[in-house]
Amino acid sequence: MNPLYYVSIVREALNEDLGFQDLTTETIISESHCSVAEITAKETGILVGMDIARCAFELLDKKVNFQAKIADGARVSPGQVVAVIEGRTRTLLGGERVALNFMQRLSGIATVTNKAVESIKDFSSHLVDTRKTTPGLRGLEKYSVRMGGGYNHRFGLFDAVMIKDNHIAASGGITEAVSLVRAKVGHMVKVEVETETLPQVEEALQTPIDIIMLDNMSTDQMKEAVQLINKKVLTEASGGITLDTLVRVAETGVDLISLGWLTHSAKALDLSLNIIE
Amino acid sequence: MNPLYYVSIVREALNEDLGFQDLTTETIISESHCSVAEITAKETGILVGMDIARCAFELLDKKVNFQAKIADGARVSPGQVVAVIEGRTRTLLGGERVALNFMQRLSGIATVTNKAVESIKDFSSHLVDTRKTTPGLRGLEKYSVRMGGGYNHRFGLFDAVMIKDNHIAASGGITEAVSLVRAKVGHMVKVEVETETLPQVEEALQTPIDIIMLDNMSTDQMKEAVQLINKKVLTEASGGITLDTLVRVAETGVDLISLGWLTHSAKALDLSLNIIE
Amino acid sequence: MNPLYYVSIVREALNEDLGFQDLTTETIISESHCSVAEITAKETGILVGMDIARCAFELLDKKVNFQAKIADGARVSPGQVVAVIEGRTRTLLGGERVALNFMQRLSGIATVTNKAVESIKDFSSHLVDTRKTTPGLRGLEKYSVRMGGGYNHRFGLFDAVMIKDNHIAASGGITEAVSLVRAKVGHMVKVEVETETLPQVEEALQTPIDIIMLDNMSTDQMKEAVQLINKKVLTEASGGITLDTLVRVAETGVDLISLGWLTHSAKALDLSLNIIE
Amino acid sequence: MNPLYYVSIVREALNEDLGFQDLTTETIISESHCSVAEITAKETGILVGMDIARCAFELLDKKVNFQAKIADGARVSPGQVVAVIEGRTRTLLGGERVALNFMQRLSGIATVTNKAVESIKDFSSHLVDTRKTTPGLRGLEKYSVRMGGGYNHRFGLFDAVMIKDNHIAASGGITEAVSLVRAKVGHMVKVEVETETLPQVEEALQTPIDIIMLDNMSTDQMKEAVQLINKKVLTEASGGITLDTLVRVAETGVDLISLGWLTHSAKALDLSLNIIE
Amino acid sequence: MNPLYYVSIVREALNEDLGFQDLTTETIISESHCSVAEITAKETGILVGMDIARCAFELLDKKVNFQAKIADGARVSPGQVVAVIEGRTRTLLGGERVALNFMQRLSGIATVTNKAVESIKDFSSHLVDTRKTTPGLRGLEKYSVRMGGGYNHRFGLFDAVMIKDNHIAASGGITEAVSLVRAKVGHMVKVEVETETLPQVEEALQTPIDIIMLDNMSTDQMKEAVQLINKKVLTEASGGITLDTLVRVAETGVDLISLGWLTHSAKALDLSLNIIE
Amino acid sequence: MNPLYYVSIVREALNEDLGFQDLTTETIISESHCSVAEITAKETGILVGMDIARCAFELLDKKVNFQAKIADGARVSPGQVVAVIEGRTRTLLGGERVALNFMQRLSGIATVTNKAVESIKDFSSHLVDTRKTTPGLRGLEKYSVRMGGGYNHRFGLFDAVMIKDNHIAASGGITEAVSLVRAKVGHMVKVEVETETLPQVEEALQTPIDIIMLDNMSTDQMKEAVQLINKKVLTEASGGITLDTLVRVAETGVDLISLGWLTHSAKALDLSLNIIE
Repeated sequence: MNPLYYVSIVREALNEDLGFQDLTTETIISESHCSVAEITAKETGILVGMDIARCAFELLDKKVNFQAKIADGARVSPGQVVAVIEGRTRTLLGGERVALNFMQRLSGIATVTNKAVESIKDFSSHLVDTRKTTPGLRGLEKYSVRMGGGYNHRFGLFDAVMIKDNHIAASGGITEAVSLVRAKVGHMVKVEVETETLPQVEEALQTPIDIIMLDNMSTDQMKEAVQLINKKVLTEASGGITLDTLVRVAETGVDLISLGWLTHSAKALDLSLNIIE
Repeated sequence: MNPLYYVSIVREALNEDLGFQDLTTETIISESHCSVAEITAKETGILVGMDIARCAFELLDKKVNFQAKIADGARVSPGQVVAVIEGRTRTLLGGERVALNFMQRLSGIATVTNKAVESIKDFSSHLVDTRKTTPGLRGLEKYSVRMGGGYNHRFGLFDAVMIKDNHIAASGGITEAVSLVRAKVGHMVKVEVETETLPQVEEALQTPIDIIMLDNMSTDQMKEAVQLINKKVLTEASGGITLDTLVRVAETGVDLISLGWLTHSAKALDLSLNIIE
Repeated sequence: MNPLYYVSIVREALNEDLGFQDLTTETIISESHCSVAEITAKETGILVGMDIARCAFELLDKKVNFQAKIADGARVSPGQVVAVIEGRTRTLLGGERVALNFMQRLSGIATVTNKAVESIKDFSSHLVDTRKTTPGLRGLEKYSVRMGGGYNHRFGLFDAVMIKDNHIAASGGITEAVSLVRAKVGHMVKVEVETETLPQVEEALQTPIDIIMLDNMSTDQMKEAVQLINKKVLTEASGGITLDTLVRVAETGVDLISLGWLTHSAKALDLSLNIIE
Repeated sequence: MNPLYYVSIVREALNEDLGFQDLTTETIISESHCSVAEITAKETGILVGMDIARCAFELLDKKVNFQAKIADGARVSPGQVVAVIEGRTRTLLGGERVALNFMQRLSGIATVTNKAVESIKDFSSHLVDTRKTTPGLRGLEKYSVRMGGGYNHRFGLFDAVMIKDNHIAASGGITEAVSLVRAKVGHMVKVEVETETLPQVEEALQTPIDIIMLDNMSTDQMKEAVQLINKKVLTEASGGITLDTLVRVAETGVDLISLGWLTHSAKALDLSLNIIE
Repeated sequence: MNPLYYVSIVREALNEDLGFQDLTTETIISESHCSVAEITAKETGILVGMDIARCAFELLDKKVNFQAKIADGARVSPGQVVAVIEGRTRTLLGGERVALNFMQRLSGIATVTNKAVESIKDFSSHLVDTRKTTPGLRGLEKYSVRMGGGYNHRFGLFDAVMIKDNHIAASGGITEAVSLVRAKVGHMVKVEVETETLPQVEEALQTPIDIIMLDNMSTDQMKEAVQLINKKVLTEASGGITLDTLVRVAETGVDLISLGWLTHSAKALDLSLNIIE
Repeated sequence: MNPLYYVSIVREALNEDLGFQDLTTETIISESHCSVAEITAKETGILVGMDIARCAFELLDKKVNFQAKIADGARVSPGQVVAVIEGRTRTLLGGERVALNFMQRLSGIATVTNKAVESIKDFSSHLVDTRKTTPGLRGLEKYSVRMGGGYNHRFGLFDAVMIKDNHIAASGGITEAVSLVRAKVGHMVKVEVETETLPQVEEALQTPIDIIMLDNMSTDQMKEAVQLINKKVLTEASGGITLDTLVRVAETGVDLISLGWLTHSAKALDLSLNIIE
């Protein structure tokens, strides 16, 4: 990741939590008081966020010593120490909540992603994320999906073309929409079309696109569509897929399965920071 | 809410999603093409985020007409239209994802808060949030907790004093820590002390504080502590409380129950935006 | 103080003064030329701003060596050296004015605060500041008040409740206003009510508030109000109090005396920076 | 003034004061409640800051109606209404303190400047400000000096050359320093030299400069220097000049008198905002 | 384009030019003085920048009336009026230089792009830009290339994969590099490989990539490579191509020709703004 | 230069190019992989931008080792190594394009400036730049003009007065415009008047100004104007001057010649970065 990207996010988060001062710590604990703290996993999952957590402490005091005990993407167990931090107590307590808030959220995303990935590991389908991410944290959340074993869909509206129902309606049809896009968009941009019916899939197949999304189709429809498309372009299943229905979707042979809940509804992974000496 | 606060958050979110341009829409749909869109609830819950959603569209085009059909905090049912938006199609599609990402997250927080609040409505305890919020969105998330019927704990490290175990250890005891705080902190600042045992509760009760937190205690311990404190100061239950154990905690008679999962693990409320003409 | 808070203020101040370049120094003095400079007090007062001054030089060159000779809050005499700075001459001259502008203003606030505090040291009243601070520097100015021996009132509109005449008028009375506040505001927020007459004090005393402000009352009225309140809640005297009338106000037995002029009209403390070798 | 310049300063000041919300007003006063408020002078002085105050309210709500009753630079008397504002009560109370904090400070600077200007109105000397301004507010404060009848010295280190003692020492003399400057600096830049003795004045007169500063000289020395210079270049008196000694300095015939206390030690002008209906 | 993107760039440019004030205009021309101005082309070319220019004036005063006489991408002739602006004279003169600086630069890019496009209009090759753009203006410059008839290459390092010589060297070969990329990168990302020899082209053809760049090859080598590739993937000619050699490169049958000088060395198109009444 | 000024420009440029990540490099090259790279000139010119290039790499990784082989303003020949950089390969490739984009543009400006300066080295006229600079990079471009041997005109609208035709028209004449300016503007501000005819020059000469601009005059007119002015004030030739006509303009004896194309139409100097081990 671009370090300038996440440093500015962490700086804003520290300012949000600390404001002008840490009323409690600055009143009770002297500036020179030092401690050692551990960050510990309290449940099983995939840990993400080491550089973010380090950054939270180093922005408050460059001299803090942050030692990561594992790398991003590693599986952790309850009680496992994931990082040890030495420095001024004010720094440790001032950065604690921000470091944990990031790590818990990002690890939660990686953990649920990994669970979903594991559930279809016998199939060839790849899991991908969506743009349904937390405002302001998209780069970090997409990174977490990768750490959990998933893949990234486009980042935003600017880096790939996705022709949706409203585009199709406004332009008069898939053929017309793709034609407009191909006339203007550069050669480094991939084009995906959203389809909801098999006739739409057939129309899309006649156009120069890279991916066909099968949106809100039944798994029977998906199977038929996959056969129709026959690997000529990539296929993506999307819409209303849950952890329970995932295997059945993977069985259809689609190349990609996109899941909004990897990022918009992930449960935080429980972690804690304790001063040990 | 201070409008300057959320406008700058929404602006950043739009830039994150749109970058330099919306490749698809700007290629397919003309600048003058106009539409009407509806935002519709797809499940039951408490809706939050009208001003945020309006702001997402208005930042892209001041002339968009956003009509909220309900107010923040209202309960919605599947299929219910919550807002109607008229304007240029490019504006509607450009702001769609950002508006929904905010509304879904905030409504999810209000919905889970409301569920928890309802579950203990026969008790006097108030539910409160924590600092375990999404980095960068704390003000919005705490607002959502209020819309769901909960109350706000302190905003950050700067607006109230919370004496935790590390502060107690570093200063030599609750009495010493409170004494240091009282000597320096202004008269508009409330002081809470975290206790884990009844002897700590007893010590805290001898000091000039406003709230005693009962951290990770069993409900039996909590009951005993509540009797001991006997309304002399407020009491807050905290640590490991779930929707299942909530009623038992409320039965102890504590004044406040703080729940990190209201904000760190809320599931998004399902909403969609559809162009209707 | 949160270092991220003041670093960004100092960075803006340096950019305001230096713009794109220091035309004079960059033209006359070579990049490698080094010097030692002293910051010297030119009058008696309370010095504040060591971290700010250090920051002004370090932002221009991380390798500068800034040695504080005293701590914030110390009393200084004319001629006393308060800091010694070694580094590139360009850095010393580039940061000089910004460092001094901050130190002189903040020390001026601490000095006048201390003078006021000393004048009522035989009484129990605490002096507190107001929101009448320099736009953009509130955190630094409130810190300076503390360094001078004063206490901080609320920081802004967001961290405590102050019910003023307009709130009372709009809601129909003190009782109604407090009732609205208590129904919505969290348990970590203190509530103060502004009163101008004894009947208002009596009404306020019947409501669950933390502080009663006695606004623009005569000292006779204040005395009466203090007796009436009888330590049930804190009392704050406010409005038109000068250094001359301060003792008489303290004699009334109020707990707090708030003074806008600590921050809005403080005279700068005279300091100078001299290159000594 | 460049409106983009002051709008961003006012926005920061509002965020400093309001944070995420105005706890009191948003709890007590409904969003639709409207009022009319007046800003009234409480003492005699020169008023400055109409555009700033208007901006403070308009940033919170574009629809507020702010009517200035006088123009910046006008003299006001106690009780005089200087502006009337109509709009939502939340907007009026939310912007009140920020608007007043700016107006009081800037008017205080204009008022003390005007007093100093009036005291030497029978002489030809112009009063000028310095770089001893409040960090972050220099443009506003220099504008206030002009509104009070004073003139602006250079804005910062970037828009004019001022050769001071340290530059002279580092380069080997006034002649050498001026020579270095003239070899590099563009034709739109004025050059001033600081002198402390008559021999320095004589040396400076032999060089191609625009202004000679007479720094910390006695009025007798100044008179001699002025005669020596004999209008060949402009002369500026500087250093330790008070309101009491101002006339004597003006009598020396210097062209300019610079006063740091116009900006670093001005007393705020007392103003208040009252809701009148 | 995302309006939030260019508004913030134009705001910075105005602040760079105006600083705190327009010394000349604010001194000479009254606030109420109004004028009508025309922007006129002084040479033949492709005009770009209408929204940017409008924005420069509207940021200074929302009420200015900016009428574009042509659309971005139109060809202009000497003397042709391209926009008429009515408003306060201070606004017209304050925004003039910034509006023209943007329009001249962007139009210069569109003009040179169009000249290059026209020179190979009988061939199928598309012209594309590079990342050799002005720091801070990439989005505007890539838009200008499109307005001139060119196409955009990837925007930055984040939206597409380009495997260059250093990547190949570090990973052990094209096959290895592509393999690493394909294992990790999402399905919406295109992959291009830089080749300098025919054996490299042959190796690249065996891997799952989308584009082969022919870097710094002679036109004879290019022809051979194009035949070898035989439309299996896209081909891009790059490196040292001038307006003089462009036709010969196009004759090789490559799909794309990338030219750094479209953006890094374009001559500004001459435009002027005149007050006409 | 003020380091805070260019660091923030370089940071923005890195974010523009890198976005959230360098897709290619982070996928192919491991975090610990290190390299040595050289920046080499590929044509003859004046090199500018060492601090900017260093900054581009150091912002990505403080530990990179950037060694400048020459100083800004030095002449380089094809093949000459101008800097050597050691560090993590990811850092070298991540900062490469931004570092080169800056250096190439700034060196291009210095190179064309130097060519123009050399062409009139036998005359006394100085070459100066204009405000026709790249939005956002003015300070860097004006620095580059100096490095090429030119001089800087005013920086923006805020640091000097330039009375143009529109100001003259609006105020009623040169005499009136200068009079308004002199009544308000401080003593550190230079005043230039634009003239287009000899009668205007004569009128300007009767007013207290510092420079007369001869705008779009023939060289014959210029000569006459220079004689008329006779060194009483400085003279500046401006408007439509090319490299071909430069000597003839210098022959007229004007003090200054301003050239917009030094900055708005400079060709980039060709440089490359190569990993050498």
